[in-house]
Order: sequence, then C-alpha cells, then structure tokens
Amino acid sequence: MLLQASIDWNLRVHVLDADAEAPCRHLCTQFTQGSLTDYDTVYQFGQAVDVLTIEIERVNVDALEALEREGKRVFPQPSVIRTIQDKRLQKQFYRDHGLPTADFILTENRADVASSADFLPAFHKLGRDGYDGRGVQRIVSINDADKAFDAPGVLEKAVDFEKELAVIVARNERGDVSTFPTVEMVFHPELNLVEYLFAPAEISDAVNEQAQDIARRTADAFGIVGLLAVELFLDKEGHVLINEVAPRPHNSGHHTIRANVTSQFEQHWRAILNYPLGDTTYYQPAAMVNLLGEAGHTGPARYEGLETLLALPGVFPFFYGKAITKPFRKMGHVTVMDSNLERLREKVAVVRDSIRIISE
Amino acid sequence: MLLQASIDWNLRVHVLDADAEAPCRHLCTQFTQGSLTDYDTVYQFGQAVDVLTIEIERVNVDALEALEREGKRVFPQPSVIRTIQDKRLQKQFYRDHGLPTADFILTENRADVASSADFLPAFHKLGRDGYDGRGVQRIVSINDADKAFDAPGVLEKAVDFEKELAVIVARNERGDVSTFPTVEMVFHPELNLVEYLFAPAEISDAVNEQAQDIARRTADAFGIVGLLAVELFLDKEGHVLINEVAPRPHNSGHHTIRANVTSQFEQHWRAILNYPLGDTTYYQPAAMVNLLGEAGHTGPARYEGLETLLALPGVFPFFYGKAITKPFRKMGHVTVMDSNLERLREKVAVVRDSIRIISE
Repeated sequence: MLLQASIDWNLRVHVLDADAEAPCRHLCTQFTQGSLTDYDTVYQFGQAVDVLTIEIERVNVDALEALEREGKRVFPQPSVIRTIQDKRLQKQFYRDHGLPTADFILTENRADVASSADFLPAFHKLGRDGYDGRGVQRIVSINDADKAFDAPGVLEKAVDFEKELAVIVARNERGDVSTFPTVEMVFHPELNLVEYLFAPAEISDAVNEQAQDIARRTADAFGIVGLLAVELFLDKEGHVLINEVAPRPHNSGHHTIRANVTSQFEQHWRAILNYPLGDTTYYQPAAMVNLLGEAGHTGPARYEGLETLLALPGVFPFFYGKAITKPFRKMGHVTVMDSNLERLREKVAVVRDSIRIISE
Repeated sequence: MLLQASIDWNLRVHVLDADAEAPCRHLCTQFTQGSLTDYDTVYQFGQAVDVLTIEIERVNVDALEALEREGKRVFPQPSVIRTIQDKRLQKQFYRDHGLPTADFILTENRADVASSADFLPAFHKLGRDGYDGRGVQRIVSINDADKAFDAPGVLEKAVDFEKELAVIVARNERGDVSTFPTVEMVFHPELNLVEYLFAPAEISDAVNEQAQDIARRTADAFGIVGLLAVELFLDKEGHVLINEVAPRPHNSGHHTIRANVTSQFEQHWRAILNYPLGDTTYYQPAAMVNLLGEAGHTGPARYEGLETLLALPGVFPFFYGKAITKPFRKMGHVTVMDSNLERLREKVAVVRDSIRIISE
C-alpha cells in the first residue's frame, strides 16, 4: 500500500524483503531478497538509496545507525526504532516523558514475574521480538507464572478498559505534526489481532482530545520523522493510556486510503520526504474488517464471496497478494464506508458473513 | 492507474507495450515489449492471459478477433474497437443508431473536401490513426482545402458549442450499465488537449439528463463490455451531440480516483471481469488539471512547484513516470477537490500557476 501511494508521485522505490516471492516484488522499481535483521544486508541495501524507511520495526538498527552516521537520511530515525523495538525501553520512555501508560515493572526473567504476586493480574510482554499477539502472556495469578517469559520483559498492569483506540500521527523534519481522527479497534477475542475498526471512534470530545493530545506529545517526545501509530486504552474512568506504538503505517490506518483526504501511506511519504503534511479530514465514517485465513485451511488461497461484497456500495476489498493462506493469516482487509452509521454496521455484518479465504 | 487499481484486488496483470522502458514496467506481474499493431505480437501475448483488455485503441484488431474466435475473453470486444478506430465507421454508427451527432460527409481524399464548399466551416478528420489533436484540421473556407487530409476521412460540421461535456459509462457482460456524473472539459486553445476539467459539470438538469441518456444508449448500442468515454458537445440551443468516444479509461475520468466512490479504473476491472458495477457517487466537486511539459524544454523531467501544490488541502498530483519531458507532452495530472466551488477554482488557479515540468 505504501508502494501504491508512491506510484502517484513517481517515486523510484527499492524494496528489501526476506521473501523472494514477496507480493511487492512486482510493484517496485528494484527488489532485493535479503534479511532485514542482517547487518551487512541492510547496510549495503541502504547505501544505494537516497532515503531509507521501514514497514516493520524488526530490522537491524546497528546498520541503520551506521548509515545515518554516514549522512544517509533514515526515517523513522534508528534511535526511535531502537526504543520502540524493545517494550522495556518503550515503557520506560513513556514514564520518563510523563506520557500516560499502565503501571509496569521491568523483569529480567520468569522468577521476577513469579515474585510479583501483588502486581497481578498483569500482562507479561517479551522485551524484544513480540509481534501480532506473539510475545504477550496474560498472568492472572501466581499460578500462571510458568507462562511468563524467561527472558527480559515487562510486567504491565492489566487495564480494565472500556475501548481500545488508536491515533496515527505524522511528523516531518521541519517539526510539523498532524494527527488522523481517533479510531476504535475491536480485537479478536483470542488472536490479539484487530478484527475490525471504526473511524471515527464513538467517544466524547473530552476523551478524543486526550487521545489526540497524547498522540501529538508522543510524536514530539520521540522527535520522530514519519508516521507513528499510537495504540491507546480508554479505561473505565475515562482516562486514556498509551498501550504501545508503531513507527510506521499501521493496520489502524488502512481505511484512510479511501475514507480520508490524505491516506496514512501518502502521509508517510510526505513526512519522510519533508513535504507539507496532508489534510487528514475524512469524507465519511468508515470501518475496516481484517480478512484472516479460514481456520483449517492451509494452501493456495481462494477468495469466496467476492461477488456479494462487490455488490455493496462503498465497500473496498484489499488483498495483499499472499499466495498461501493459513489459519488466521492476515490476507487482506475490507474498507467499508457510509454516511449513515447504522447502514455502515449493516454492511460490516454482510462483509464479515460473506467473504471466506480458503485453500483451493 | 489501471495497474494501481488492480493491485487492491490482487490481479496478476501482464502488460504489452512498445516502449521497453514504459513506466508500467515495474508495476506489473509480467512485462512484454512489443508492438500493439503487430498481428503476431498481439496474438501471442493474448494467448497467455485469461482476459485481454486495452488502454489505447490503436491495436491490431485482427489479432484480437482471432483470439476472440478461439474463445478468449477480449473486452472491449474487437468489433467495438474496429468501429471506434475509424472515425468514418464511428460517425456512421451514430447515424445508424439514431444517436445525436454533428452532421457529416464521408470523404475519400482532399478533392472531396475541396468540392464541399457549402458544407464549411467544418472539421476534417482522418478516418484512422488520429490521436490527441493529430489528424484533425479546421477547414473554415474552401481556401483551407489544402490542409485537408488526402486520405479517407470525415468532414464534420463545426458545432458552435457552449461547452464540451463527457460521460464515462461502464457496461458488464450481464448488461448492467452505470454512468459517472457528467463532467465539463476545457480544452487548451491550440493543442486540442483537455487543459482542465470540472466535475460535475455546471449544466441544467435537462442537459444532464440528455448527456447521461446518450451515454447509456451509446454503450447499449455498442453492447460494449468495459468502459466507454463519451465526449459530447452542448450546442447553443441546449442540444447534446456526441463528439467521439473512447472504449477505455479516459482522461475525463482521472479525477474519479479520488473524488468518486468507485474510480473509472476499478469500474473497468469490474466491467471486464463481470462483477457488479460500483457506485459512481462523488464525495466532493473536483477539478482535474493536465500537466503538460513546459514549452522549450526537452530532456529528463524535473518538477518545479511541488511544495506549493502539496501545501494545499485536497490537491493530489499524479505523475506518469515518463523520464523525458517534451513541450506539451502529457506528464501527469492534478486532481483538486473542495466542497466549495469558489475555493475549488482558487485552488485550480494556484495549481496552474505553481507547477512546471521542465528539463534538467
């Protein structure tokens, strides 16, 4: 989707991806197969481009820092990625900058969790390399301590939340900051993946102002250049807390491709190329439904129900071009738009019931 | 832009283009360099795909007909392309189907024009191979007869028009027909190229109904599967006449990428893949400004004024990735949107004044 946005501006984009058959392979000016976590691969790749950015934060930051030292423009900045890569540094960063977040304890190993009975219920999060639900364990009581990670992590107070919100914020080199409207995410009960999203969130003005303000302050605190997706909890008392952030285009902003004047992807290019940031106003309320591979199906992907979906006005499927489907693999998403919120919800229900991604 | 729309749906697109360095080369699944007018090239290319479509009507129709006879799905149908390729057949088609168009005489050579003094002023159009202003001559009086083409053509009464309008219409295999809102085109005084466009057109409901009705009837008369761009004259008496048509995505629909629920490009895919046609409602009034290479500049293209343009809300540049600029070469376009028509016109003026495409 970042590549699609680059086409309008005639940008020449080189892509480094570990998968030789990555779907983006046929959509970019130059494709290099290689590991994002290997120093030499990233360093050599970066030397050939003018501006370097990322779409995933599991990348070799040492190589990015070396490139930055040599004068290469690397956005988001390696120092920001380094902090965000490690949930321990990330949480500490919020505390140091007075940004609201759930209380936490840094843990070095499983024993540290086992000895923190009075801090439970809590979530134990692996410091590094967690992704999309991996690397997080719910520890309700001391009896669950064996589920904790025996590696450096953070034990975070479980927030009894009312809603999960997100604000995507962009910041360019000259320090302009622009936020997208606050959205509301509904997570899959088991998978820790966004199941669907509504934009804008149905929240009070006061809550919205908190969310927007926190997003701006977080972007400024990091001094980030690029996009920052700020995931938030709204607790039962009406307080907004930072859950975690991602320094890149994010699932919680996919609807902006159709629903907003400027998409998150165009906004990322604007930010890292130091152009004026775009207008983030939305045309109509929108929802986003993630398309996950059907349980029990592994193999070449087939899409059922597309006809039903395309018969609905204002419904836009986005398939990610992944050849193989697996149970719960994120295969695409559907953006749904309507000026009427009731019709919007009805359309979301039809989308969820109609489309299935199965193996051939 | 057709490729960009295909990415959302994960379509595998093979492209045949005469230019080995065509900008689409890096945006498609498979690229073949070859002549669109060569029988064997088109025939062999077509054999490897499931559905064949075109973006330019100067293509070898004999090859397309052979593929169609062998059961290949070719949309728009070769018979439609054959009629539209030749302005003589096209004009005769309107007459045969009772579709309103300016009066005309078929001419075989220059002498036929010279002997038609009482039909002037008129435009002499070459039957075949005219494109973007080439192949059209204004013949005011018999003194201009030497400017006429000495080849089969059509001499068409000059319409004293109030406005030039266009309606893009889509038709799928099951016969569903859907039109985009009527737009108004302002041509460059000398170049016979659309300079800018406003959508929707500022016309009366009665005129709009004529335009929409003619577009639907023309699509049905051709039985076309795919997009048909119908260019129209509104004469001083309030009558709408067909100027000419193009059986493909068209410059008069580029604004639909941002301004309408469904873009003309997505609509073309829907039509030729026999999916339900998309909603063509617009979100906001829009304008489109064609970006032409600056006079006096030939060479590697450089874009001046992008910063000014990107600072305006609701302004979207689209650059076509052409490496070399030439005087008046179509290098891209800018879509401008605003809910307020006065602000829309102001933004169009800023866009026209700010951006220049020059050689390095």
